[in-house]
Amino acid sequence: MTAPFVVVGGDAAGMSGASKFRRAAPDREVVVFEQGEWVSYGACGLPYYIKGEVETLEELVSVTAEEFVEERGIDLRTSHEVTAIDPDRQSVTVVGPDGEFEQPYSDLLIATGADAVEPPLDGMGLDGVFTLHNMDEAGALRRYIGGETPAANPQAQGYGGIADEYAAAEEPDAVAIIGGGYVGIEMAEAFSAHGFEVHLFEMVPHTLQPFGAEAASVVEDHLREQGVRLHLDTPVDALLGDDSVESVASGDTAVPVDLALVGVGVAPETALATQAGIETGPTGAIATDEYGRTNDDHVYAAGDCAESTHVVTGDADHVPLALTANRAGRAVGQTVAGEPTPVGETAGTAALKAFDLAVARTGLLDEERAREAGFDPVSSTITTQSRAHYYPGGAEIQVTMVGDRESGRLLGASMVGREGVPKRIDTVAAALHAELTAQQLSYLDLAYAPPFSPVWDPVLTAAKVLDGKIDSPER
Amino acid sequence: MTAPFVVVGGDAAGMSGASKFRRAAPDREVVVFEQGEWVSYGACGLPYYIKGEVETLEELVSVTAEEFVEERGIDLRTSHEVTAIDPDRQSVTVVGPDGEFEQPYSDLLIATGADAVEPPLDGMGLDGVFTLHNMDEAGALRRYIGGETPAANPQAQGYGGIADEYAAAEEPDAVAIIGGGYVGIEMAEAFSAHGFEVHLFEMVPHTLQPFGAEAASVVEDHLREQGVRLHLDTPVDALLGDDSVESVASGDTAVPVDLALVGVGVAPETALATQAGIETGPTGAIATDEYGRTNDDHVYAAGDCAESTHVVTGDADHVPLALTANRAGRAVGQTVAGEPTPVGETAGTAALKAFDLAVARTGLLDEERAREAGFDPVSSTITTQSRAHYYPGGAEIQVTMVGDRESGRLLGASMVGREGVPKRIDTVAAALHAELTAQQLSYLDLAYAPPFSPVWDPVLTAAKVLDGKIDSPER
Repeated sequence: MTAPFVVVGGDAAGMSGASKFRRAAPDREVVVFEQGEWVSYGACGLPYYIKGEVETLEELVSVTAEEFVEERGIDLRTSHEVTAIDPDRQSVTVVGPDGEFEQPYSDLLIATGADAVEPPLDGMGLDGVFTLHNMDEAGALRRYIGGETPAANPQAQGYGGIADEYAAAEEPDAVAIIGGGYVGIEMAEAFSAHGFEVHLFEMVPHTLQPFGAEAASVVEDHLREQGVRLHLDTPVDALLGDDSVESVASGDTAVPVDLALVGVGVAPETALATQAGIETGPTGAIATDEYGRTNDDHVYAAGDCAESTHVVTGDADHVPLALTANRAGRAVGQTVAGEPTPVGETAGTAALKAFDLAVARTGLLDEERAREAGFDPVSSTITTQSRAHYYPGGAEIQVTMVGDRESGRLLGASMVGREGVPKRIDTVAAALHAELTAQQLSYLDLAYAPPFSPVWDPVLTAAKVLDGKIDSPER
Repeated sequence: MTAPFVVVGGDAAGMSGASKFRRAAPDREVVVFEQGEWVSYGACGLPYYIKGEVETLEELVSVTAEEFVEERGIDLRTSHEVTAIDPDRQSVTVVGPDGEFEQPYSDLLIATGADAVEPPLDGMGLDGVFTLHNMDEAGALRRYIGGETPAANPQAQGYGGIADEYAAAEEPDAVAIIGGGYVGIEMAEAFSAHGFEVHLFEMVPHTLQPFGAEAASVVEDHLREQGVRLHLDTPVDALLGDDSVESVASGDTAVPVDLALVGVGVAPETALATQAGIETGPTGAIATDEYGRTNDDHVYAAGDCAESTHVVTGDADHVPLALTANRAGRAVGQTVAGEPTPVGETAGTAALKAFDLAVARTGLLDEERAREAGFDPVSSTITTQSRAHYYPGGAEIQVTMVGDRESGRLLGASMVGREGVPKRIDTVAAALHAELTAQQLSYLDLAYAPPFSPVWDPVLTAAKVLDGKIDSPER
């Protein structure tokens, strides 16, 4: 009998891979080892759970462990940690509730994800200091701030201990967020909804680095309007306090807070892979080919632990986002089942809600990175309306678009505004995949109706202005 | 001295052409003749003026006649009708307030637009029977239903006489809309907002033909929920009444109404052109090449009177929509100024608000038309969510997508739902312009954030399902 397809990690990439494999090869066996209790959950929804818009952690689960086992026929084992891979023997070492055992595999999918980066700050171990990268951390944080106890659930047992430890703490008045990325911005909204005084610390001059300074500036103005205290260009030196965090120290100042959320990014979980000789690429994530295969023919990697190929540069990139993980996992499942399926290229397309604003980005926005990739970037920013000028309720949309001077090719874009932003960025993402020039983009026949768009959609206007700038004499 | 560039018609295509020409060739002269008083107005906004969301007709004007003359240096002459074109002498005959004269041209742009089709029904001449294709008609209709008098304005004089005639009429209780196209659906919403009983008559089994039966069915259910009485598959035989309309007759039944709005489509205004030997194409609109040029080297046509090229079929099409007109007019202005600029291809991308729903379409949806164009159409329809499953406030989106079995190429799509629809169709429109296959579309890296989209955007899911159906054995 052939050994089963083995998957390490039961979140987006792992469960997508296992599910697709079972559908494509119903006669073959797949085993998934997940070290925790939660599987297939929407980590992107954690800020909304903290905010209270999502009532329970269970709601974030798209398919439960039971459903995977009973309805999809997947041999899913939670509380099972894979501690070693032996590529020569095609076998993994697993530690489960009943001890350690060896599990042979025909093919292996490493879907170990990423973990929150813990910066080397004094005070990271204090009570009231949190990261927010998984369900247990979210459960603990919500208990700490006085949110409701999540409903009892077999899956929820995992964080019971931690949560109880914090349950008696007093509700905080002021909170610090260290890091102005996705999590930082979303959590500023979540904490504000609880009435806390929110201090957001970002060590560089702007939040939301991947979105560029133009979009970030608009978001920052809006955060200030909403009462968030921004500390930009402000590296945090330490978190101070006796048992629990009492202030955030930066230079000569210390801002008093009762809670600190540290969200300075994520790093791919590659230890298991590298110990087995699986190679990482230039980004530090696991290197893969177009089918998600690593340097070992029978070992694949997908999701936040793996690299992907950037659609504009063609280079390896690390895009720890949900669609990339789902898509790559699914493709690997199909490939292992016998139908080779590329994992697809990524444009780093992303969107984010920041209070009443939406901000979105796709492609290559950073001019330095564009030059490194061999382009001569030209950038332009316009502000226009989301609806026909006479139709009530419209809002401004700011679009920044970057193109290559020599070829005219579109490289990337960001957008920010109160409506119509997130799905407008998709039009630009499609243009990137199709390698359109700014001029070609300006000629697309996009939808117009007074309640939804001006006659010239903001995307078209931005492309037209960029095309004009590309055609103009050198700066 | 060279003769000026002459433009016939002062709406979207004409004024875009004149404006672009002046910017590109500031030393050269442009003369625009407009037979009415209004120029450059948003005809698509007329239903919202009737509804009352737009207060005055003036608000629909994007640039006034005065601004064109004083700020843009365009010799714009309203109340001037061009009655003949002499292509050999390169001259037009114009009738203005001071009589008839000849105007020579170096190049001529025909931008005469389209007019509402008046079906050959008995009773079209009764009081209380309206079409809605221009500002004067809209002014008269709003007065008739007891809407407010538009603010006094020099441009508004044009319809003073008509409006006064109707001002004394009693406010209607029940209204009929003849025709379930764009105008019919938008006006159902507008009339309902006034509290009228609305009867919508459509001679074929579904409204919104260009959107396909799948999307139309969803809209129709919603219209019924909103209290609109739908009379589908119901040809109207006559409008009955003594002086003013009293009922709509169809077969053996007569529905009593106090007002009838006839919106059965538009026809290109080609009489002026054809009398001068300018040729029309298969659609009945003026035939043009990729630069908007007619069969006469010095005569161009753009906007609702002209044909354009369909991006999927490559055939001539007639797309009387605002973006097509603006874009083509602008391109002709640039071409005539010395920089040959294609007018661009059209996908028939369109969006429409119907009460709380939005419906949108792009490309080739009609299977018969697809077969005529040499494709073997495969169609699939999915329903999915506009947001992450756990994020509150999401709504269903139904997507119908059509592809070609042999090549896998995407041909068109429709969408309908309460949020996220209009700008999602643009992603598909971009894919059509780039000639992507359904599979390639399913691999785009589109934006995900819980408040805005599921991980797999509805566009991706629809493309994935369509791709699976294309790959499956023949039906």
